[in-house]
Amino acid sequence: MPDTTTTTTTVNPISWTGGGDGFLTLIDQTRLPTEVAYLNCKTVEEVWQAIKRLAVRGAPAIGISAAYGVVLGVRDEAFLGAAPPAKDSATARKAALASCDHLATSRPTAVNLFWALDRMRGVINGLEDDLPPAQIAKRLLAEAVAIHEADRLQCAAIGRHGADLLNELGASSGIITHCNTGMLATGGDGTALAVLFALHERGLMPRVYADETRPLLQGSRLTAWELMQRGVNVTLICDSMAAPLLRDGKAQAVIVGADRITARGDTANKIGTYGLSVQAKHHGVPFYVAAPTTTFDLSITSGTDIPIEQRAPEEITEPFGKRTAPEEVPVDNPAFDVTPAELITGIITERGVISPVSEEAVRAMVGEE
Amino acid sequence: MPDTTTTTTTVNPISWTGGGDGFLTLIDQTRLPTEVAYLNCKTVEEVWQAIKRLAVRGAPAIGISAAYGVVLGVRDEAFLGAAPPAKDSATARKAALASCDHLATSRPTAVNLFWALDRMRGVINGLEDDLPPAQIAKRLLAEAVAIHEADRLQCAAIGRHGADLLNELGASSGIITHCNTGMLATGGDGTALAVLFALHERGLMPRVYADETRPLLQGSRLTAWELMQRGVNVTLICDSMAAPLLRDGKAQAVIVGADRITARGDTANKIGTYGLSVQAKHHGVPFYVAAPTTTFDLSITSGTDIPIEQRAPEEITEPFGKRTAPEEVPVDNPAFDVTPAELITGIITERGVISPVSEEAVRAMVGEE
Repeated sequence: MPDTTTTTTTVNPISWTGGGDGFLTLIDQTRLPTEVAYLNCKTVEEVWQAIKRLAVRGAPAIGISAAYGVVLGVRDEAFLGAAPPAKDSATARKAALASCDHLATSRPTAVNLFWALDRMRGVINGLEDDLPPAQIAKRLLAEAVAIHEADRLQCAAIGRHGADLLNELGASSGIITHCNTGMLATGGDGTALAVLFALHERGLMPRVYADETRPLLQGSRLTAWELMQRGVNVTLICDSMAAPLLRDGKAQAVIVGADRITARGDTANKIGTYGLSVQAKHHGVPFYVAAPTTTFDLSITSGTDIPIEQRAPEEITEPFGKRTAPEEVPVDNPAFDVTPAELITGIITERGVISPVSEEAVRAMVGEE
Repeated sequence: MPDTTTTTTTVNPISWTGGGDGFLTLIDQTRLPTEVAYLNCKTVEEVWQAIKRLAVRGAPAIGISAAYGVVLGVRDEAFLGAAPPAKDSATARKAALASCDHLATSRPTAVNLFWALDRMRGVINGLEDDLPPAQIAKRLLAEAVAIHEADRLQCAAIGRHGADLLNELGASSGIITHCNTGMLATGGDGTALAVLFALHERGLMPRVYADETRPLLQGSRLTAWELMQRGVNVTLICDSMAAPLLRDGKAQAVIVGADRITARGDTANKIGTYGLSVQAKHHGVPFYVAAPTTTFDLSITSGTDIPIEQRAPEEITEPFGKRTAPEEVPVDNPAFDVTPAELITGIITERGVISPVSEEAVRAMVGEE
């Protein structure tokens, strides 16, 4: 188990302490909102576990955390095959690559994980032969920091583009969001939540309806918490309560994040997103996805090719420690679903808005900078 | 607090012990599925509380329980204004009517409650002057038993009509249901679940996808339990997981119960039903409502006239004793929503199936026997 410290004063979801021989600190999101506890990760396995058990989650945050995790690999006994420090450059490089491979097995759906690890592999493969292990760690850390910092800037740009787009809704509009897409999910202000924060800061005072997001209640535990911390009006609802709000005109838009977006715009996101998109369509309410270009996977076209993670039945049958379902009941627990491009009004990226959503428009925006 | 006894052998959700001076026994549904505990209710207030806190729930079961509750009123100090027995016929009748009025305030949406209490009021108002209080209790008990027994037969008939209708789906079809509409919700086999039990008994072996039904998890705690008890294939899902099943052809029908149905067929049912109906429509999957004619309220036409109960925020923010949302977060917690007739393929009653659903068809089936 990594070290755990508890505090209620500062909130910095992902941070690195020290140089190439430093360590990664994450907010343990499983303990929010009742506790703000930090996890210090000093081994690759601790980062892997943090991702697997959702101590850190959200596609961009997973990618950033994994990148930092690779830095730890260079001095991780499990990957060096011997006590650190690494005896030579080749051993350090091999350990770093093996760390990438291992971290890639933590979760299957969010493409930012694979994108970030590919960037780290690119650095490793480009290193001069005989670069000392300490220098390798420094280079890897610089890359992880660059990924982190780029994500922060992307969040800010998504917030601006999204607020420009949703500005036309006018003040005090109701906006439904699903899962958590804020500071906790990214390296900055978030994706969908960055848009809502930006609207709020422009004085438009949106009323955000936060789906609680079963089974793990990221909306209730994380999104409601983040919005309240920053003074945004929020009303918590169960996932099943969105449809009447859409029908009754209480919500003028839906905005969500993404875990992977294909070349045609099909979008994998937290389970429940697809049903919400169907409901938005039925009621003529615009449905937006907000995601950095790192969330796009142009190697696939159809959303049916996105691997969907199945998670443990206990997430549904024993919510937060209390058994609520019969013993041995069969359970289906996909963590994500896929919303087809046809149901998406627009995709808000850091480069601008893709709308209408088509393969041509996606490739034009995302293909090359 | 009423007496509580625990057992794991028999299951009889609603029963009466003794004659006019007997008492009502209910399964405490809040403790299922981990415990099968019974509540003995010996006062009107205990019945009122059992309905209010959902120890007994389901529109027909609420009506039946309230009818039995009125029997208790005749010897209830709180309604007699003095220690029992009632000193005369007028006092007993007055206490019974006051019990009806009080029980009617327990929950607002399910019309079966008001229908059953109106039947009890009819009996009270038709009593001979000077009938001894003990005889009054006997007459009221006979009426409550008649309501209970009629509901049992109605459930069986709904099961038959529904199974005839859904028979065409063929064996092993996937069917989605929401909330609990079985033995626990009625005086017999249920409404929507009676149809599924009947299909199962005909050897068609449906695969039932049970929505867990947030916030109170009636699908997880009660429906999955009932289906497993009777050997029906069940898979538990979160409410947000239905849409992908409908899209992927894993579910060929949706069937739900009802708490109140208007003259044009608009149907109030557990929150989440409306969104599910929208998803069924989008995917071209038939959407059925199963309910006895006692669930119809021909005095209103539009579903917007059905009062919708708002329940405590803690049902969402503290699921099963564990705080999962920030303190003081605003919450919207409607217990029901309304599905318009246009989204309902058919309504299965004990008299037959209303399909297509129109005011003319509803009045023809339900208006007069």
